[in-house]
Amino acid sequence: MIELGRNRYGKAQIHVVRVARDPGGHRVRDAIVAIALEGDFAAAHTDGDNTLVVATDTMKNTAFAFARDHLDGSIEAYGRALAEHFLEFEQVDRATVNVREHRWQPIAVGGRPARDAFVRGGAGTRIATVAATRSATTVEAGIEDLVAMKTTRSAFKGFPRDRYTTLAETDDRLMATKITAIWRYGSPDLDFDSTFEAVRRTLLEVFADHDSPSVQTSIWIMARAILEGHEALDEVRMVLPNLHHWLVDLAPFGMTNDGEVYISTTEPHGLIEATVRRSEGA
Amino acid sequence: MIELGRNRYGKAQIHVVRVARDPGGHRVRDAIVAIALEGDFAAAHTDGDNTLVVATDTMKNTAFAFARDHLDGSIEAYGRALAEHFLEFEQVDRATVNVREHRWQPIAVGGRPARDAFVRGGAGTRIATVAATRSATTVEAGIEDLVAMKTTRSAFKGFPRDRYTTLAETDDRLMATKITAIWRYGSPDLDFDSTFEAVRRTLLEVFADHDSPSVQTSIWIMARAILEGHEALDEVRMVLPNLHHWLVDLAPFGMTNDGEVYISTTEPHGLIEATVRRSEGA
Amino acid sequence: MIELGRNRYGKAQIHVVRVARDPGGHRVRDAIVAIALEGDFAAAHTDGDNTLVVATDTMKNTAFAFARDHLDGSIEAYGRALAEHFLEFEQVDRATVNVREHRWQPIAVGGRPARDAFVRGGAGTRIATVAATRSATTVEAGIEDLVAMKTTRSAFKGFPRDRYTTLAETDDRLMATKITAIWRYGSPDLDFDSTFEAVRRTLLEVFADHDSPSVQTSIWIMARAILEGHEALDEVRMVLPNLHHWLVDLAPFGMTNDGEVYISTTEPHGLIEATVRRSEGA
Amino acid sequence: MIELGRNRYGKAQIHVVRVARDPGGHRVRDAIVAIALEGDFAAAHTDGDNTLVVATDTMKNTAFAFARDHLDGSIEAYGRALAEHFLEFEQVDRATVNVREHRWQPIAVGGRPARDAFVRGGAGTRIATVAATRSATTVEAGIEDLVAMKTTRSAFKGFPRDRYTTLAETDDRLMATKITAIWRYGSPDLDFDSTFEAVRRTLLEVFADHDSPSVQTSIWIMARAILEGHEALDEVRMVLPNLHHWLVDLAPFGMTNDGEVYISTTEPHGLIEATVRRSEGA
Repeated sequence: MIELGRNRYGKAQIHVVRVARDPGGHRVRDAIVAIALEGDFAAAHTDGDNTLVVATDTMKNTAFAFARDHLDGSIEAYGRALAEHFLEFEQVDRATVNVREHRWQPIAVGGRPARDAFVRGGAGTRIATVAATRSATTVEAGIEDLVAMKTTRSAFKGFPRDRYTTLAETDDRLMATKITAIWRYGSPDLDFDSTFEAVRRTLLEVFADHDSPSVQTSIWIMARAILEGHEALDEVRMVLPNLHHWLVDLAPFGMTNDGEVYISTTEPHGLIEATVRRSEGA
Repeated sequence: MIELGRNRYGKAQIHVVRVARDPGGHRVRDAIVAIALEGDFAAAHTDGDNTLVVATDTMKNTAFAFARDHLDGSIEAYGRALAEHFLEFEQVDRATVNVREHRWQPIAVGGRPARDAFVRGGAGTRIATVAATRSATTVEAGIEDLVAMKTTRSAFKGFPRDRYTTLAETDDRLMATKITAIWRYGSPDLDFDSTFEAVRRTLLEVFADHDSPSVQTSIWIMARAILEGHEALDEVRMVLPNLHHWLVDLAPFGMTNDGEVYISTTEPHGLIEATVRRSEGA
Repeated sequence: MIELGRNRYGKAQIHVVRVARDPGGHRVRDAIVAIALEGDFAAAHTDGDNTLVVATDTMKNTAFAFARDHLDGSIEAYGRALAEHFLEFEQVDRATVNVREHRWQPIAVGGRPARDAFVRGGAGTRIATVAATRSATTVEAGIEDLVAMKTTRSAFKGFPRDRYTTLAETDDRLMATKITAIWRYGSPDLDFDSTFEAVRRTLLEVFADHDSPSVQTSIWIMARAILEGHEALDEVRMVLPNLHHWLVDLAPFGMTNDGEVYISTTEPHGLIEATVRRSEGA
Repeated sequence: MIELGRNRYGKAQIHVVRVARDPGGHRVRDAIVAIALEGDFAAAHTDGDNTLVVATDTMKNTAFAFARDHLDGSIEAYGRALAEHFLEFEQVDRATVNVREHRWQPIAVGGRPARDAFVRGGAGTRIATVAATRSATTVEAGIEDLVAMKTTRSAFKGFPRDRYTTLAETDDRLMATKITAIWRYGSPDLDFDSTFEAVRRTLLEVFADHDSPSVQTSIWIMARAILEGHEALDEVRMVLPNLHHWLVDLAPFGMTNDGEVYISTTEPHGLIEATVRRSEGA
């Protein structure tokens, strides 16, 4: 016997731009939205019965319609409004809305922010994922593609050596990474914007300040500091590639290289992932 | 109290090329390998203790060393050899090896395959993931990025309409997708190459042959046919984006358009996922 | 004094799909089109005068409208029809249309091509660029992203050595590249499809057959063979990155490596470009 | 007769990171370098004679070696040192060095810049191209991938209408683009860093301040302002895609949309290019 297992469907890469046209200065919100539904969709698969299948085109329309009234605040609030809307369909058990936000900043003109002109930029992409069921709404938030580097205070030594080990131990290496950090909030009702900014600041400050004996320990130190500093968070998951920068051997050219010249590489790379959380007994 | 949750680490994007230099004709194997380990790595995080941390550089070296003796057969066999090797470290509970293979085909010269020259190509990328623990080795295999299209025999109608629904019902649309299909084998000892080819053929033939009332139903029909036709598989997971091709309205230019001219789009796209499996009672 | 120099404008990434629905079997043409115009557009720049500015949206519409009647044959013929159409605007001196084609092949079902289902694939992307002025129409065609490899019969030695040279000479290396080859036809009236196929075959056969003392010489040998074999072409321009595959040193692991295991890299890469042409005196 | 035409070769994607370890705070320079040589290389093509072929591997080594002594200042100075070095080979007539720079900024810790930790970011990528021959060294500089938006004060009307025109005229649209601006300096001896910053500031301020009747006019207005404001520049070339943001029709949902909600698209896009220069008679 063959049966349907877990399934979900939705619309991805809905790219919404929302402009708030305040006389004192416009604001731009730029969100790439993905919506996914789970629920009573077995007949859609096994019987070709679309009676309960909310069209993904409808999801797209809804994302644009909701942007008008719900996307002037946090992406978490917008995501929550969308997710809870889709629960109004009886056949939906879980609605998940993921939002990736590009930041647009007013151009400085004569030292003052322009009223109606912007550049896109900034380090890293803010993301949020809201998952709503009839019993709970959970909010995850975080940052992706935050490229960061420590030019010293990073080591890696004391690791085991086997037949295939050639890496030298080092007390002082350059560590570069592209941080993904996703955290889960304990409540769906928070000041998401200020919390995000505060967590991001902790993340970067601890990245800058700590001595790293390994990427693994760096994750622990950063994630623990985030949880200790921000009660609203229950859990932090981090994914840190190790984007190796190898010291170039300049000796053949009669030159020294005391931590000055590196070749930056992306392939292959280390990839370190861990979740750090409050203990359930806490 | 704050504690370490799930964690793993490894090396990704190890790009191995293995040439078998048979006098009658060379063969090229091209594998992008990712290795991840789980196990007794808590102290590496919380104490900066690298005593048990197999260096990811060592993983990379091992991938190249094992390519010499194990990468002339299937990528599943190579992945298994690597995964089981890393279990020899006592601190490792689970070793996961993912391999993505590029196909190189001999260039035809005067109608015969060249002995030592190749082009890379083909539709879709073959992948395999081997996960080994001390109690079991599981093998998943599949295909990614297989772009396919049905120019007719695809419909979507009978779906619910709400305030945000504008999509028209259709009896006949163009359906384009980029298929990801991953299946789990019941055994780690199989003729993986011939099984892959047979499953791929079933997948494509059923894609071509069936009438599609929705992408959801297409997944069910294809996955069920694969499981019915191939006993070695326990489960198939499919992810099908709906890469919308919209019929262009040529009426403003005084022209008809009876399913002839489409605009191909990638954003936004539908995204349909489901797992189909043998019932546990079966 | 400040003045306007060279300028042009147009629409890019127009993704047209054209389906020919013959009862015996559908055919799919998939073209990504870019259109650029040059001409009397100074006032558009310096005076904000749009009187002569054909909207790029109109160009897009025209590409779709022309697909209906002109995209069942070669992409060169389609590009030419479009380019010559835009010359009908008096203000246009030169219209350039670039087309990149994805190949869709019928899925084999029971050994026979499906009537209405296709996969996208193949090695390399066919391209064509048609530039029309009131005095001439020139057609360039070619192929991009054709990834190819010679596993032997490639050498590189006898090069000069200076203070910064560390590369060893080699009699036998693996050569991998991603071929771009663009050629110019002597006439805008040709059987473009069969000529393309014939030139592509020559390119690949010579790539496979020749002994390469350098990428530079490989370009010369391939381009000369193409010009000698195909009178319709006046000139061939080739761009060949050298995608280095370095033999992995397995000696630390107690293993030999006689041309068996390589690390495939993309960065940094060599980049060799040359044009080969019929002499003007010929 | 068949002959060799224009040719050049070199190394691309050389990714150099240079750390200056001042006690008061490290500085990071991150340069992706491409080097290309032209000259007496005909025999390398036609005769397989490598006697004069400086290995691209040697170019890569040289880029790293020169980074140590020349990459603590501007990328233009580094590029010039490299380009003029390669002219020391008699067979080289022209050496071209292109550098793309990623910006790394110190992380703020407690409001002060970290001494040894950085994030990569910022809007746009700074680039420089130095071309040296025995008679002259020319320096081009500029910025790429600077994504910018005007939320008002952009119009497009008065354009011609033909059979294929459907675009409505508009007095007020959202204009988004990804600016490429490349300028040529009159001298190879300048304070390149401060000039770059000043030109970038002019570019953005004028982008923000002007009323745009078309992308064409925007290029003219910005480029003219740059040339008027910065005597060191002889010429500016700009490439501006028009990344269309279409106002979403919310009327079917019973909602107005007064310039609030847009769908952001990348395909197809307008593409407008022009060079603006000082007149030769000036």
